[in-house]
Amino acid sequence: MVKLAHLLVATFGALLVLNGCLARQSLGVPPQIGNACNLDNLDVLQPTETIKSEAGRVEYWDHNNPQIRCAGVSVSRLIIEQGGLYLPTFFSSPKISYVVQGMGISGRVVPGCAETFMDSQPMQGQQQGQQGQQGQQGFRDMHQKVEHVRHGDVIAITAGSSHWIYNTGDQPLVIICLLDIANYQNQLDRNPRTFRLAGNNPQGGSQQQQQQQQNMLSGFDPQVLAQALKIDVRLAQELQNQQDSRGNIVRVKGPFQVVRPPLRQPYESEQWRHPRGPPQSPQDNGLEETICSMRTHENIDDPARADVYKPNLGRVTSVNSYTLPILQYIRLSATRGILQGNAMVLPKYNMNANEILYCTQGQARIQVVNDNGQNVLDQQVQKGQLVVIPQGFAYVVQSHQNNFEWISFKTNANAMVSTLAGRTSALRALPLEVLTNAFQISLEEARRIKFNTLETTLTRARGGQPQLIEEIVEA
Amino acid sequence: MVKLAHLLVATFGALLVLNGCLARQSLGVPPQIGNACNLDNLDVLQPTETIKSEAGRVEYWDHNNPQIRCAGVSVSRLIIEQGGLYLPTFFSSPKISYVVQGMGISGRVVPGCAETFMDSQPMQGQQQGQQGQQGQQGFRDMHQKVEHVRHGDVIAITAGSSHWIYNTGDQPLVIICLLDIANYQNQLDRNPRTFRLAGNNPQGGSQQQQQQQQNMLSGFDPQVLAQALKIDVRLAQELQNQQDSRGNIVRVKGPFQVVRPPLRQPYESEQWRHPRGPPQSPQDNGLEETICSMRTHENIDDPARADVYKPNLGRVTSVNSYTLPILQYIRLSATRGILQGNAMVLPKYNMNANEILYCTQGQARIQVVNDNGQNVLDQQVQKGQLVVIPQGFAYVVQSHQNNFEWISFKTNANAMVSTLAGRTSALRALPLEVLTNAFQISLEEARRIKFNTLETTLTRARGGQPQLIEEIVEA
Amino acid sequence: MVKLAHLLVATFGALLVLNGCLARQSLGVPPQIGNACNLDNLDVLQPTETIKSEAGRVEYWDHNNPQIRCAGVSVSRLIIEQGGLYLPTFFSSPKISYVVQGMGISGRVVPGCAETFMDSQPMQGQQQGQQGQQGQQGFRDMHQKVEHVRHGDVIAITAGSSHWIYNTGDQPLVIICLLDIANYQNQLDRNPRTFRLAGNNPQGGSQQQQQQQQNMLSGFDPQVLAQALKIDVRLAQELQNQQDSRGNIVRVKGPFQVVRPPLRQPYESEQWRHPRGPPQSPQDNGLEETICSMRTHENIDDPARADVYKPNLGRVTSVNSYTLPILQYIRLSATRGILQGNAMVLPKYNMNANEILYCTQGQARIQVVNDNGQNVLDQQVQKGQLVVIPQGFAYVVQSHQNNFEWISFKTNANAMVSTLAGRTSALRALPLEVLTNAFQISLEEARRIKFNTLETTLTRARGGQPQLIEEIVEA
Repeated sequence: MVKLAHLLVATFGALLVLNGCLARQSLGVPPQIGNACNLDNLDVLQPTETIKSEAGRVEYWDHNNPQIRCAGVSVSRLIIEQGGLYLPTFFSSPKISYVVQGMGISGRVVPGCAETFMDSQPMQGQQQGQQGQQGQQGFRDMHQKVEHVRHGDVIAITAGSSHWIYNTGDQPLVIICLLDIANYQNQLDRNPRTFRLAGNNPQGGSQQQQQQQQNMLSGFDPQVLAQALKIDVRLAQELQNQQDSRGNIVRVKGPFQVVRPPLRQPYESEQWRHPRGPPQSPQDNGLEETICSMRTHENIDDPARADVYKPNLGRVTSVNSYTLPILQYIRLSATRGILQGNAMVLPKYNMNANEILYCTQGQARIQVVNDNGQNVLDQQVQKGQLVVIPQGFAYVVQSHQNNFEWISFKTNANAMVSTLAGRTSALRALPLEVLTNAFQISLEEARRIKFNTLETTLTRARGGQPQLIEEIVEA
Repeated sequence: MVKLAHLLVATFGALLVLNGCLARQSLGVPPQIGNACNLDNLDVLQPTETIKSEAGRVEYWDHNNPQIRCAGVSVSRLIIEQGGLYLPTFFSSPKISYVVQGMGISGRVVPGCAETFMDSQPMQGQQQGQQGQQGQQGFRDMHQKVEHVRHGDVIAITAGSSHWIYNTGDQPLVIICLLDIANYQNQLDRNPRTFRLAGNNPQGGSQQQQQQQQNMLSGFDPQVLAQALKIDVRLAQELQNQQDSRGNIVRVKGPFQVVRPPLRQPYESEQWRHPRGPPQSPQDNGLEETICSMRTHENIDDPARADVYKPNLGRVTSVNSYTLPILQYIRLSATRGILQGNAMVLPKYNMNANEILYCTQGQARIQVVNDNGQNVLDQQVQKGQLVVIPQGFAYVVQSHQNNFEWISFKTNANAMVSTLAGRTSALRALPLEVLTNAFQISLEEARRIKFNTLETTLTRARGGQPQLIEEIVEA
Repeated sequence: MVKLAHLLVATFGALLVLNGCLARQSLGVPPQIGNACNLDNLDVLQPTETIKSEAGRVEYWDHNNPQIRCAGVSVSRLIIEQGGLYLPTFFSSPKISYVVQGMGISGRVVPGCAETFMDSQPMQGQQQGQQGQQGQQGFRDMHQKVEHVRHGDVIAITAGSSHWIYNTGDQPLVIICLLDIANYQNQLDRNPRTFRLAGNNPQGGSQQQQQQQQNMLSGFDPQVLAQALKIDVRLAQELQNQQDSRGNIVRVKGPFQVVRPPLRQPYESEQWRHPRGPPQSPQDNGLEETICSMRTHENIDDPARADVYKPNLGRVTSVNSYTLPILQYIRLSATRGILQGNAMVLPKYNMNANEILYCTQGQARIQVVNDNGQNVLDQQVQKGQLVVIPQGFAYVVQSHQNNFEWISFKTNANAMVSTLAGRTSALRALPLEVLTNAFQISLEEARRIKFNTLETTLTRARGGQPQLIEEIVEA
């Protein structure tokens, strides 16, 4: 019976039926997962689990939470301390991230692309077959593209692509990450699966897996590994470093000497967004102008890039497949918003995407309404908290005295929004006669509803607000 | 225990396991939903639930019916009485509809598109900022495109797009609607979810939801709504009209004065199908030539548009992504058919789609055969009834003395059919040797099977038929 | 209770919850199906069920096996004896096959395409309406394209497309087939469903269906069939040949006289791969240059076509949407490999696909590592055996004294691989500093890891190997 209960806990991917015989053992198993989404009560969510490493930690939101599971995603927050290195990792789902704080350099492995970053003088007049030996004399290192990342960057990673990040700044590097598990690129199940080229998870798996997690090389016979890499068995065993307890984020000893272009001045925002890397050598095969050099990140924190900009109210900036083409491939997009004090994001809903909103700074009141017209969330959301807003659900964001800053990930490469108030709103698109008959109001009242609010997206929120917030805080 | 049973009823989205302990409480919960389709017995289906409104009603087919659930759709029939207005509504899935009877005008909200329909003289030389006040003097109303719809129209609506319909005719306007819940555009669960910009469902939800359903605005704090729309709180509360018991289809008092182009003569069918709206003002932004003016409906009842036409036998007309490009986006298509008395739609199967066939007039005998070669349906289908024909299942339609008229929705933008008899049939594509060996028949017999029937799609059904029909009616 | 248990067995498409009350009846029902993949132990798989026919047999792998179910596929091996004819069949999922042995001719029904293969002189100056009668005099037969297939061919079939194969060689024709049930083209459930235009399965269904399976025509009223084909009822009943016990592969009596172009010499490999068929008649409608003549097979066994070629080590050849465009449509691809004795396929993982590897000859040791770094498979794989390698799972293949030949099907039209050793590997793409810090090794050791192995894909496996293999064989 114990074994059966165990099995139940392990198989959280479909609906479980509780019953008199097993009810005790099954407690804690979410019954609403599977095809049916229970979205009658949404919550402001915090991370529920932390995996610590030598030089940082990863904080996970519970991916079995009904809202997160219904949205088909998995969310985590990556904190890399100064001088910390997040070791090469990949996922079976595509990932979109936002750098909340700090700066660093990152690399992404694209199989088959040339190692276009090389120090010292390049190899000349040498035969391909001698490259290994020769390489050790003619240059120190060559590797694939390395890029600077910093506060405000949205980073897109395709399924199966290994990537690493090193914190070059003087404060922790904080990145909020979303795996789109329901994405077409993921051909495994709905569990978030982490594949490690290096590093491990000595605490045992997050997400209800109790066994220790090693890197990929650990599972091979060391003799096989030695033959594949043409190294001795002792070194192969070191690659499997199973005694290592540093986790997935390790502290770099001494300087981190990686070939990379100089960091441009932050004010050169236009150039920043189109890094071209160093001049290509004549041996390059052309591929690096295509997927090998595909742009994978975009800074959306620069006010000069705002899509909606209202002095004293705030701004909103989106990145979608038209601004960052790789998003077409991974079918995700993101929106960055800054709302100043006593302002409001006009009520709206997502037409074709789920939205995962993460507060990076400040606080605001968020109300969400479901398909039955019921209020399913009305809470203050603060820095570090997350709200899932399902497709079609209307919501409004109001700041009181503080700013409210957020990043929203959306599960569509070209997420569309329909606003419910303002110059581009659905109400304004309707004829007056539809409004008068729908709401049993006069023509004059309908005109006010359609034409009074001239703004789009953002507006000033006047009066009444503080009291409301206090009521909620008390409740 | 009662609570558990409740939970079971609520979570109809995945497989339920009945057992001795809970068997009673679980009765009525369909066990075959989830990944496995039980298609060994198909049925002719009627609506099982009606939601009444002031000026009409919506009749729903049970979306938990195994056939409908397996096809991944939800079907309803909308009846709008004379002078009735179906209030703005949207869905998280795309929708395809067919106007069975009557005529009306409809509008669809496309966020960000200009309000291109405006009465009186347009605004001139005015500043944008004064538009609200000014507008009330220089024009009566401006809103997005409004289109005439009438008997024979197929209407396509994308996920998240609000739409309304007003009955302008002198008889009830009847529309059969299909939501494609399994569509990639739906990012929620497999439950059909109705989002109301206005109106409500005072009877409590259809589809096993017992709570009353309000419009989207009801879930917001009225003070927030007042601020967003810059109206007073009293008017905001009227928008939430929670005391309203008129439902989702309301009676329009007096004339329905909406800006719209004149209705062209029905015989101008070619022009009808490409409405261009009134001349655009010079302020328009170009978008209205693209998604803002994307054609969303197509009349397929005009005999002049027939794809298959056989005098005295009938005709078949399809609309797919080549004739109505928006269908590429929502991945649905439709076929309209008229079969005269004593005729037959030759046996065939759908290669890449599920088909949902609805009888709009008359009656016919339909036989459906599953993957095991078993007859899973052999019944008379009459006006107002629906049959689900799963992908790959062969079927034949025979009329006796009456006409048979139908509309079929298919879950593929370019649904392909393979016929089993006639000049373009699979049997004719096969070499004679394959037929003689497969069926152990002579070369001469194989030749008859391949070449005797010269028609495609439709043929005359001679003799024997009445008797068969009577047998079935009796059984 | 018996009925309930029955129902449980029938609904294997979602998670089942075992419990004390029902545990006995539920035994044998896989608990891990549904959304959660249990991939902690992989196995080398053999077929578990054989359906015998008059002139051959079909061997099925258990599609409820967790690995196969998780991969979303169904696998079978088709053995057609000399002179055997596999009768026309289609599926609701796309299919990709590889001809392991033998040769034959095959036909594929494309609805609406012309019968471009015709013997004798073509019809001239005849009216369309007389074609049936006339045809019997002016020519013997006309039918759609027939193609030669042979050892080494990959064959792609779209959902709903009927196809037949005749063994023209002097040995059994052996074909390994994969149905991609999780493919977007399949709109039914996750059960493999076989639709038969002719033939049957007299033994009762495979895959847990106990009832006898007939051809599609059997389910229709014979009178209706007679009318549709304009034949007498007796002949219609013969088409339903329900007394036939020959199964789905029948023995052809006498010569198999089908119109077909002569088989070219096998050494003309380039021309072979682009068969154009006979000259088209002037009546053709143009369609046959498009989908009607779309290339559906490609020989990947010719060493001249190798993508990776290393004398004395082996070769690897892939076919994807760039080499066989129909694969873009069905979203599948295949890789053929030959590994000579004492060699190794370097460790790698699939970035965006599941891989189903089938051994066609010889044997090798395969190790697979999961996302936790655990070894989940380490076995000798022999001719006729199959291994499922999930997306992201790393694996290595080593031959000892024998060759190892395999075909891999991949669930992506452009499957991408990331190697873990060699010149294009992920390790080489990383900067030295990442390696030294990740594995706590010296710069010199990191250099060896990156640059020692110059090969890509294949390398020589030296020493140590025999002993390891023997250990495994003994265990």
